[in-house]
Amino acid sequence: MKKYDKLVKNAVGRMVPEEINGKTVVPYMGVGKYIPTGNKYAPPIPSCANYPADGNKMLNSLKDALIACGLKDGMTISTHHHFRNGDLIANQIFDIAHELGIKNLMWFPSASFPCHEPLIKYLEDGTIHHIEGSMNGVLGKFCSEGKMQGLGVLRSHGGRYQSVQDGDVVIDIAVIAAPTADPFGNANGVNGPTACGPLGFALADSQYAHKVIVVTDNLVPFPCVPWQIHGNHVDYVVLLDKIGLSEKIISGTTEITKSPDRLMIAEMTARFCDEAGIIKDGFSFQAGAGGTALSIGIYFSQICRDRKIKARFLRGGSNKYPVAMLEEGLVEYILDGQTFDLEGVRSMRENPNHLATSPFTSYNYHGKGNFASMIDVVILGATEVDVNFNANVVSHSDGYLLHGIGGWQNCLFGKCTILPIPLFRDRMPVIRDEVTTICGPGELIDVIVTERGIAINPLRTDLIEKLKNSSLPIKTIEELQAEAEKICGGKPVNPKLGEEIVAAIKWVDGTVIDVVRRVIPEKE
Amino acid sequence: MKKYDKLVKNAVGRMVPEEINGKTVVPYMGVGKYIPTGNKYAPPIPSCANYPADGNKMLNSLKDALIACGLKDGMTISTHHHFRNGDLIANQIFDIAHELGIKNLMWFPSASFPCHEPLIKYLEDGTIHHIEGSMNGVLGKFCSEGKMQGLGVLRSHGGRYQSVQDGDVVIDIAVIAAPTADPFGNANGVNGPTACGPLGFALADSQYAHKVIVVTDNLVPFPCVPWQIHGNHVDYVVLLDKIGLSEKIISGTTEITKSPDRLMIAEMTARFCDEAGIIKDGFSFQAGAGGTALSIGIYFSQICRDRKIKARFLRGGSNKYPVAMLEEGLVEYILDGQTFDLEGVRSMRENPNHLATSPFTSYNYHGKGNFASMIDVVILGATEVDVNFNANVVSHSDGYLLHGIGGWQNCLFGKCTILPIPLFRDRMPVIRDEVTTICGPGELIDVIVTERGIAINPLRTDLIEKLKNSSLPIKTIEELQAEAEKICGGKPVNPKLGEEIVAAIKWVDGTVIDVVRRVIPEKE
Repeated sequence: MKKYDKLVKNAVGRMVPEEINGKTVVPYMGVGKYIPTGNKYAPPIPSCANYPADGNKMLNSLKDALIACGLKDGMTISTHHHFRNGDLIANQIFDIAHELGIKNLMWFPSASFPCHEPLIKYLEDGTIHHIEGSMNGVLGKFCSEGKMQGLGVLRSHGGRYQSVQDGDVVIDIAVIAAPTADPFGNANGVNGPTACGPLGFALADSQYAHKVIVVTDNLVPFPCVPWQIHGNHVDYVVLLDKIGLSEKIISGTTEITKSPDRLMIAEMTARFCDEAGIIKDGFSFQAGAGGTALSIGIYFSQICRDRKIKARFLRGGSNKYPVAMLEEGLVEYILDGQTFDLEGVRSMRENPNHLATSPFTSYNYHGKGNFASMIDVVILGATEVDVNFNANVVSHSDGYLLHGIGGWQNCLFGKCTILPIPLFRDRMPVIRDEVTTICGPGELIDVIVTERGIAINPLRTDLIEKLKNSSLPIKTIEELQAEAEKICGGKPVNPKLGEEIVAAIKWVDGTVIDVVRRVIPEKE
Repeated sequence: MKKYDKLVKNAVGRMVPEEINGKTVVPYMGVGKYIPTGNKYAPPIPSCANYPADGNKMLNSLKDALIACGLKDGMTISTHHHFRNGDLIANQIFDIAHELGIKNLMWFPSASFPCHEPLIKYLEDGTIHHIEGSMNGVLGKFCSEGKMQGLGVLRSHGGRYQSVQDGDVVIDIAVIAAPTADPFGNANGVNGPTACGPLGFALADSQYAHKVIVVTDNLVPFPCVPWQIHGNHVDYVVLLDKIGLSEKIISGTTEITKSPDRLMIAEMTARFCDEAGIIKDGFSFQAGAGGTALSIGIYFSQICRDRKIKARFLRGGSNKYPVAMLEEGLVEYILDGQTFDLEGVRSMRENPNHLATSPFTSYNYHGKGNFASMIDVVILGATEVDVNFNANVVSHSDGYLLHGIGGWQNCLFGKCTILPIPLFRDRMPVIRDEVTTICGPGELIDVIVTERGIAINPLRTDLIEKLKNSSLPIKTIEELQAEAEKICGGKPVNPKLGEEIVAAIKWVDGTVIDVVRRVIPEKE
C-alpha cells in the first residue's frame, strides 16, 4: 500500500503512479500506442561445465534446492497455478524461507488461490514483501484492505509473459511443479498421477529465471516426453510425495447453466454470433468455463452439427465440453492454455489435435503477433461494464480486488469480443457510469449481451449494420443501463475507498491502466 | 583470408588469433575451462501493434520480404540446411541481394553444400563478404585457397546455437525454408510435399534474429501443427513454388557397408561396446549415417533382439535403420535433429516416440546441460587422429577444408566416444603425429577402432581394465600408427600451406580451438 504525492492521468482517464514497487512504469497510452524501444531481458549465460554431465540434477529436498539456488532476502520467487486451488508447493516454499529467516521476498505466481491463505502470516511477518500476480479470494481481500507492504501488481497471462520477457520482472528462482519430469528437468503436465494439463504458465519462468527448480511426484527416466518445460533451462529437480491435487483444477461450474436468465443470455449470444455471420465453416472461438459460456458452446455445437460445418480451432481453458466437440469432429483443434477438468487433461494426452499452448504463443503482446487476435469470437465475463464499454474483471462493486485478469485482457484482441453478463447482481446494476477498476478499454469490447437486451459498441458500425433487421433485442448501452437502474431503484452506490493505492492493473503492454485503492471496511 | 601479426597459443598448442572478422575471440582454454560471465543476446522487443491482427503475414515474394526486412549492406543473413544439397533458397536470397546492389553480406548458414556453388560469384563480386558456417565441398575449396574476403568460421551445431544465443553472431535476417507453414509463420518440416524432417537448425535463428522470413511451398490455414517454428517469432511469410528437393536430404550411404574392412570395423566396434558393458537394457547411443555406422546399428539391433533388451533412446540424424529399430520395439525413443532419408521423415510424422530435437536441447554447451553428454556411446567419424587422440573432421590431409563439424564436437561429450576409422586412406596413414586441424581434444575421444586394432585412450583406465582380457586386438595408438606407417611406407606428408589464415574452428563454448591456413595449390 502506498500514498502517492503525484499521479498522472492515463489514456482512459485514470490517475496512476509513474513508479510502482521502486520501478518506473508507463501510464496506459491507448491500444497499440505504447511501442517498446528496448531489448528483451537477457539472463546470464550458463555453461554445461557447471551441470552434471550425466544429466542428473536431483537434490533431496525443496529446501536443499532453494539453498542451492542461493535463496536470500529480497529475491523474486515464481510459481505457476496450473493446479489452481490444489497447489501444494507455494506454501512449502515460503515455510522454508521463513524457517531460514529470509525476508522481503516478492512472490510472483501466475495466480494465487484460497489454498494460499497460509501465506498471509508471511505477508504479515515480512517473509513476503508483496505479491505480483492474481490474488483470487483471501489474498485479494488482504491486499484490498491495505495490509500488504508493497503494491499488488496484476497482469494478464500474456502480460506476465511480457513482463518477464522484457525484464520488467526478473525472477531469481522459479519453482515449477511438474506432474511428470526426468532427472534432467524435462517436464510435462499431461502424464502422471497428478496430471493437470499443460504447463505453459511456467514457460517464461523456465526461460528467463536465473535459477529453475522442477518439483515432481512422477519421476521418469530421461527422456520425459513431451517436454513442455525444457530441462536445458532447469537447475535442480526434486522428487516429492505429492505436488498438487489435480481434482482441484476444476474452474467455474462444470455443468451448463440451468438458470433461465443465463440460458437466455447464452442463447441470445449464440444467435447474435450466427446473425453476425461469425459461425461459418472454419471459424474459431474462445469461451470461458462458466455455466453461461458452456451453454454457448452447446449452441455452437448444435449449429455446427446441423449445418455440417466445423470450427477450425477453439482456444482456451478446456473441459469436457470442448473435448466433446473435438472428439465429435465439430472442431479441428483445441489450442489449450490450461485445463479446467480431468477430461481436458485426458484429451490433451490422447488427442494429437488437442495442443498445449502457452502465454507466449497465445497472449504475449510483445511478440510478432499472437494467437488471441486471430480468433473470430471470444466470449468473456466481467464484474462491471461502463457506458463507454470499459470493463472490470478484477474487483467487485464494493471495491474488493477478488479476481485475477487471467487471459481476459489478451482475449479482448479477438475479432469480436462479447461479454454476456446479467444486467444486475445482488440488485446492483452491472452497467455503470464508470467501472470501479478499468481492466479493458471499451474500444476492444464489441457487444454486451444481457437478459434484457444486447448493446453493440457504436464503434462497430459493421455489426450494427449486420444486425439492423434482427429480431434480437438490440439496444443502446444507455438503454440497458436505464433499465437496470429502474429495476434496482437507482444507480449503484460507490464503494468506500481510501486514498492509498493497494494494487496496479497492468495493460497487455506493461503500461498501467488503472489502480486499486484501499477498501475502507464497514467497521472503520 | 588474413595474415595476422600476432597469434597466441591455445590449450591444445595451436596458434590462433584473438580477433576474427573484427570481433574479439577467446582462444580455446580446455574442456569446461572457459566459463562465460556475460548475459545472453537480447533481441529488440517487438509489439503486436506492428503486426497484422488477423495473423496474415504473407508477402508476394522473397524479394518483397527481404526489402520489408530492410536488407542492406553489411547485414548477416542466415539459412538452415535441412534440405542439405537440395536447398533452393540460399541462392535466391543472394541473387536478390545482388540484383538490389547490396554488398558485404555475411552468410550464416547452418551448413552449405555443393548446390551453393553459384554463390562463388557473389563471394567474388563482394555481394557476400564471407561465410560463417560449414562449407561442404566447393565453397570449402574456395575458402581453403584464400579467396574469401573474411575468415570462414566453423561451428558445431551446438556452437552455432551458442553463438546466436550469446550474441557472438547477431542475425539481421533469417530466412527459414519450411515444408509446411501457416500465414502467421507457424511452421514445421514433417508435412507437405517437400517434407524434410525437423527444422531445429533454424530454431536459434527464429528466436534471436531481428527479422524472420518463413518461405514455404505448402501453406495451410492457421494453426500449422506441429509448430516447431513459432509464428510469434516470424515477421513475414512467402509462398513459393518449391523450397527444396527433399529427395536430396540423403546423407552418407543409405545401405550398410559391403566392404570387408569396414564390416570388420563395425563388428569390432559393436563387440567393444558389448565387452565394455555398454549394451544393456535402457542404454542409449548415437551413430552417424555412414555405411560403417549403419552396420554398427545392425549389430546393436541384433544384440538387443537376442537378449530381449531395448535401448532407451537413440540420438541423431535418423534414416530407415533407426526407424526400423523403433518400429520393431528395440528402442523406445529417437531424439532426432535431422533426417537423412524420407523414411526418417515419415517416421517423425507417424511415430509419437520419434521426436524432433534441436541444437538447443541436444547440443548447446551454454545451456543448463544438454542431451549429448547423457548418451552412453557415440560413434563418429574423423579424417585424421593424432597420437594424443586429438581428431580432425573438417579438413583433409592435403589441407583442404571440405567438411562441416556438424554435431561432431557436441557428441564428444557422450559417455564413451568411439571413432571407427580405416587405418589409412589413399595410402595415407590416418593416425598422425599431429592432425592438420584439431576439431576435438583427445581427452574427449575414448576409443579408436581400426581394421587392424583398437586403441583405448590411456585416460580411460576404466575401459582398459574392462577390456584387459578381451580377445579383441587392443593396441596402443602408437602401435596402430606404426602399423599404418609400415604399410604406407612412412609418415604422411604435410600439406603445403601458406601463412594466411582462411578459417577458424570454434569449440563448443565459442573459443577458438584451431585455424585453417591457406592451401597452396599444386600449380603455385
